[in-house]
Amino acid sequence: MTLAQKKNFASDNVAPVCPELMAALTAENNGPAFGYGNDPTTERMERNLRDLFGCSLRAFPVATGTSANVLGLSVLTPPYGSIYCHDLSHIEVDECGAPEFYTAGAKLVLQPGANGKMAVKDVAANLEKSGAGVVHHVQPAVVNLTQVTDCGTVYTADEVSEFGELCRNHNLALHMDGARFANAVSALGCEPADITWKAGVDVLSFGVTKNGGMAVEAVIIFDEKKAQEFEFRRKRGAHLFSKMRYLSAQLARYTEDGLWLDLASNANEMARRLSDGLLKISGVRVEYPVDANMIFAFLSEKTIEQLEKSDFMFYVMGPRNEARVRLVTSWNTTAQEVDQFLDIVRAEMV
Amino acid sequence: MTLAQKKNFASDNVAPVCPELMAALTAENNGPAFGYGNDPTTERMERNLRDLFGCSLRAFPVATGTSANVLGLSVLTPPYGSIYCHDLSHIEVDECGAPEFYTAGAKLVLQPGANGKMAVKDVAANLEKSGAGVVHHVQPAVVNLTQVTDCGTVYTADEVSEFGELCRNHNLALHMDGARFANAVSALGCEPADITWKAGVDVLSFGVTKNGGMAVEAVIIFDEKKAQEFEFRRKRGAHLFSKMRYLSAQLARYTEDGLWLDLASNANEMARRLSDGLLKISGVRVEYPVDANMIFAFLSEKTIEQLEKSDFMFYVMGPRNEARVRLVTSWNTTAQEVDQFLDIVRAEMV
Amino acid sequence: MTLAQKKNFASDNVAPVCPELMAALTAENNGPAFGYGNDPTTERMERNLRDLFGCSLRAFPVATGTSANVLGLSVLTPPYGSIYCHDLSHIEVDECGAPEFYTAGAKLVLQPGANGKMAVKDVAANLEKSGAGVVHHVQPAVVNLTQVTDCGTVYTADEVSEFGELCRNHNLALHMDGARFANAVSALGCEPADITWKAGVDVLSFGVTKNGGMAVEAVIIFDEKKAQEFEFRRKRGAHLFSKMRYLSAQLARYTEDGLWLDLASNANEMARRLSDGLLKISGVRVEYPVDANMIFAFLSEKTIEQLEKSDFMFYVMGPRNEARVRLVTSWNTTAQEVDQFLDIVRAEMV
Amino acid sequence: MTLAQKKNFASDNVAPVCPELMAALTAENNGPAFGYGNDPTTERMERNLRDLFGCSLRAFPVATGTSANVLGLSVLTPPYGSIYCHDLSHIEVDECGAPEFYTAGAKLVLQPGANGKMAVKDVAANLEKSGAGVVHHVQPAVVNLTQVTDCGTVYTADEVSEFGELCRNHNLALHMDGARFANAVSALGCEPADITWKAGVDVLSFGVTKNGGMAVEAVIIFDEKKAQEFEFRRKRGAHLFSKMRYLSAQLARYTEDGLWLDLASNANEMARRLSDGLLKISGVRVEYPVDANMIFAFLSEKTIEQLEKSDFMFYVMGPRNEARVRLVTSWNTTAQEVDQFLDIVRAEMV
Repeated sequence: MTLAQKKNFASDNVAPVCPELMAALTAENNGPAFGYGNDPTTERMERNLRDLFGCSLRAFPVATGTSANVLGLSVLTPPYGSIYCHDLSHIEVDECGAPEFYTAGAKLVLQPGANGKMAVKDVAANLEKSGAGVVHHVQPAVVNLTQVTDCGTVYTADEVSEFGELCRNHNLALHMDGARFANAVSALGCEPADITWKAGVDVLSFGVTKNGGMAVEAVIIFDEKKAQEFEFRRKRGAHLFSKMRYLSAQLARYTEDGLWLDLASNANEMARRLSDGLLKISGVRVEYPVDANMIFAFLSEKTIEQLEKSDFMFYVMGPRNEARVRLVTSWNTTAQEVDQFLDIVRAEMV
Repeated sequence: MTLAQKKNFASDNVAPVCPELMAALTAENNGPAFGYGNDPTTERMERNLRDLFGCSLRAFPVATGTSANVLGLSVLTPPYGSIYCHDLSHIEVDECGAPEFYTAGAKLVLQPGANGKMAVKDVAANLEKSGAGVVHHVQPAVVNLTQVTDCGTVYTADEVSEFGELCRNHNLALHMDGARFANAVSALGCEPADITWKAGVDVLSFGVTKNGGMAVEAVIIFDEKKAQEFEFRRKRGAHLFSKMRYLSAQLARYTEDGLWLDLASNANEMARRLSDGLLKISGVRVEYPVDANMIFAFLSEKTIEQLEKSDFMFYVMGPRNEARVRLVTSWNTTAQEVDQFLDIVRAEMV
Repeated sequence: MTLAQKKNFASDNVAPVCPELMAALTAENNGPAFGYGNDPTTERMERNLRDLFGCSLRAFPVATGTSANVLGLSVLTPPYGSIYCHDLSHIEVDECGAPEFYTAGAKLVLQPGANGKMAVKDVAANLEKSGAGVVHHVQPAVVNLTQVTDCGTVYTADEVSEFGELCRNHNLALHMDGARFANAVSALGCEPADITWKAGVDVLSFGVTKNGGMAVEAVIIFDEKKAQEFEFRRKRGAHLFSKMRYLSAQLARYTEDGLWLDLASNANEMARRLSDGLLKISGVRVEYPVDANMIFAFLSEKTIEQLEKSDFMFYVMGPRNEARVRLVTSWNTTAQEVDQFLDIVRAEMV
Repeated sequence: MTLAQKKNFASDNVAPVCPELMAALTAENNGPAFGYGNDPTTERMERNLRDLFGCSLRAFPVATGTSANVLGLSVLTPPYGSIYCHDLSHIEVDECGAPEFYTAGAKLVLQPGANGKMAVKDVAANLEKSGAGVVHHVQPAVVNLTQVTDCGTVYTADEVSEFGELCRNHNLALHMDGARFANAVSALGCEPADITWKAGVDVLSFGVTKNGGMAVEAVIIFDEKKAQEFEFRRKRGAHLFSKMRYLSAQLARYTEDGLWLDLASNANEMARRLSDGLLKISGVRVEYPVDANMIFAFLSEKTIEQLEKSDFMFYVMGPRNEARVRLVTSWNTTAQEVDQFLDIVRAEMV
């Protein structure tokens, strides 16, 4: 079996580009266009996002989720600032210090919390002890939410709004890492605005790569006054693309005809099907609520061995003898794949 | 006339993606693949580059020319180091301080030089005054060459080798910004090795975007001991791609069947044709030797006005009344386009 | 009562300069001397420290404890590195992000631990989870110990050695924040070498300011290969003194005739006297072992009010209604002051 | 002969501390005082400076000239900003990249200019070419003047005002490196305000160390809105002193009874005497106008040899066979020393 024939529960970024976005790239590839975003497709992309969010905003394509996060954070905190985030958050765990680099040394203040979610009251209590205004201490500047969280759970619009209020009261910015933003919106059935600017979010990383894109995200800045600084920081971060139109073409198409939600909804549905199936199997334990497209499950070691011999791709998280796996569904996951996976688990766990 | 029907002498990054690389992207888009470079296409890409350069090396795809440059520089200089470069060089003029950012504050020491080229003796003289070893002064660490230079000229293999020797003697690294590396190799008719590792180059930005790619360059590190540090710096610079295979697919195809040189050779030939034509027109002055695919020419203001009304894209450089234009040819420039352009100039300059 | 007549339990840096060091400054102030450390007093200072530690070393005077710490750390970690430290440590809590600044963005990984001390096994367990070698994660680089700790406790020579071994096994550097190093050596009755280079410490912040100095510390680098990089980093951190001799004069005198230990021993003895006295008073609770010159005590709110009306200076730590005070003794604390303080507490707590 | 008996024309920072400031230190050393500037002497210092400059301002003591400069610059430019300065300026030549470090990577744009002084029209012309507002280029943010310049010349109040106007017109900040500010004021016979805030200066490094201090400068911020950011940056730069009072005591005394001008006036007068004497000696050439306390002179090689055998300290600048010396006079230079020096030169140059 070749790699291309494998079945992917490893990650949504292991999936290929969806056909609609590949078609958009091909369609874009026609004649010259001025570089660095001075092209009609980039205009269309930004217009689409304004319509989607129902507000004025600035949208800046970049090519990696980490760059979206750290460039966004870089306009929200001074170098002596601090960023409150979950202790499992992507910006803390998986970005090799990129937030510190782009902010010129801001500090991430870690907040534990059940199911990958911070509780507003915990952050509030932490802020009380922060020494705001005292010169010896870093100064609270940003709260960062991951939506979908790194445990696969989702903050409700009310929960985001509570953070928005906390930030307003403490003069902090609210940043959302939305690498899986589409999955969150699909899960909540809400409007994009409900969990972003209406809830107090200042800057959003609007992810596409994990939901069918090639290598593209948008940093969405709701406060247009921050946009100019952002543009200089993007350039000096080396994230300004000469052939921007190919990023914009994906973003433009992604936000048309509900494509972005269709892709995410499939991933979410398949995760639900997989999770429902797993929970019916004796001996399987699922670790967090399955709100979107990620499942953390405890299987048996024997089951994992069997799965590894099969044509499924997935990650064992933590020590092997804990037999904890992460399963991520994607825009192209099929019910058949889910059922085949469940068959193997069912056969082994008995 | 739509933008897509315009004729592009504005920049080689205004041109679209060449069909072979677009086909490579489509071919790559088949099934899952592990992320972050752990895929067979990335392996193939690195193998190709080893064959091309005839040596062991490490090759790291990134998506912008600036990121290739500054990540490369970041493993060659300490924060208190200095980088000797031409005063018209891209890293000085066009990267909004990205070199300073990625090196944590290294200083660019500017060297004038005719035709966009530094003279070894000038850099050597400058190094004598640098205060190497003295704690009050930044410490010489790197020499940077742009190849093709920002004036469209090319360093010969001998010239690069002289810089290599200078660097060896002063314990400096030699860095090459090869955003138009293919055009340089095509112009010189040499082997890639001749103007890189054999001449003392430590790190090369191997450009693709300006020569038919979508958004991809490779940082080529000839000293493999620097590779691990590079990988961490790439990640924290937010330039590690989850769907790396799409960058690698372009690089892999680009380096097969001589595609990279075919594309560059067309651009160079068209520049030669354009330059030859211009030089025959009375009143036109061409500023630098046209070694590769860039021409800086002085026309009349009237001619420029007429060209701007036509369907040609190009840039006026400097004050308008100087009537100085930059003309860049690309992989897809045609002889017909060149001749039409010359017709307009010829008609107006009379 | 003027401020100068107050009695200081607020901090050892609230105390004045001891007469011997003031005399050293006056003695130094005689004629010209070359700057930046090229003077005989700086030579004498370094010689003294080599004698004191019984090894070759390089010693660099700086003027603040924070600069000593962060310059030391800056030569021990790459920007993508991490520094393991206690969650109450000075570098985390009280330096406003200076470690992140000087390391160009390294991450502090926080370790709780009883009495302000980390346990080796906890740090070892944390290191297991660190993702060493994996490009997505910051890379373990340094363990930082505060000696005396921020809770006033002291690591024994054996404990430091265990950290030294851990560091050796994981290829990490061991850094010691010795702002109160003299108090630690006095408390342990050991040789300076026993808790530094013999135990695996690579770089030591050797504090003087809190023990009778005006504004001077030394960064002691046991691995001389790090010294040159340190000198450039010190200069660009703006911590290289033209009139270095006045810092060196203090350090030189401090390390002669046992002065440094005499000063620290007085502080430690007075803390012991104060702590012994407090423990005899019903209702008073002392929070941590009093190993050196700091006491954290719970009094009654009424007692605190009374003390604040008196001529004693001290800090209430945390919320006022917790009635927790920090009491720090100094080189010039007298038994009479201690007894007067105890009298007030005794009178109020009854 | 001991070093202390040498006669110093090497540098004003080679001179010892003047008696008045040493007395101020001794007087300050009396009883406890709260740290970090919360003491009455620091208040008095700031009050004195407000009186001296005739305006509201904030004054922050630091211990090195470089720290004064770079902390000041750090609140005036974003990381993607540029600082226009003379190509011989201290911040470019003698700070080992500290400006780049503290500004997180801003770029110094170098301006040649006769006698160490930039011409307003040259900087204005340079600004025209800077690409302000264009995302590819660093953005002009600050103009830096050294006053006294590195060639020993002085900007007049009118000249400073012209820079002030240029900055206002281009929305730039004006920074003054006043390591020898007292010498400049003494030379001009003006009020401190005339060449600072009234002329458009935003931040001033107010030097003391070179004019009789131990290790102290003040950063003076005329725009109080910048002060809070400055305080956090000072702390994370590790330049906040716990025993601040000893820095403040020097600054307070320095600005009382005209001491600062008396010290500078002696240095200036002695330079004038020395320069006048040298100019009368056949074969001696003095390089720049001697406005303050620095002389660059060309002697004969033989003269230099003879001087080096004498008890005079001085620096040969540049290649030895150019026989160019720098002579700096100080607060404690005597007419007798000057005359003895002239005697040697006179004897040798014949």
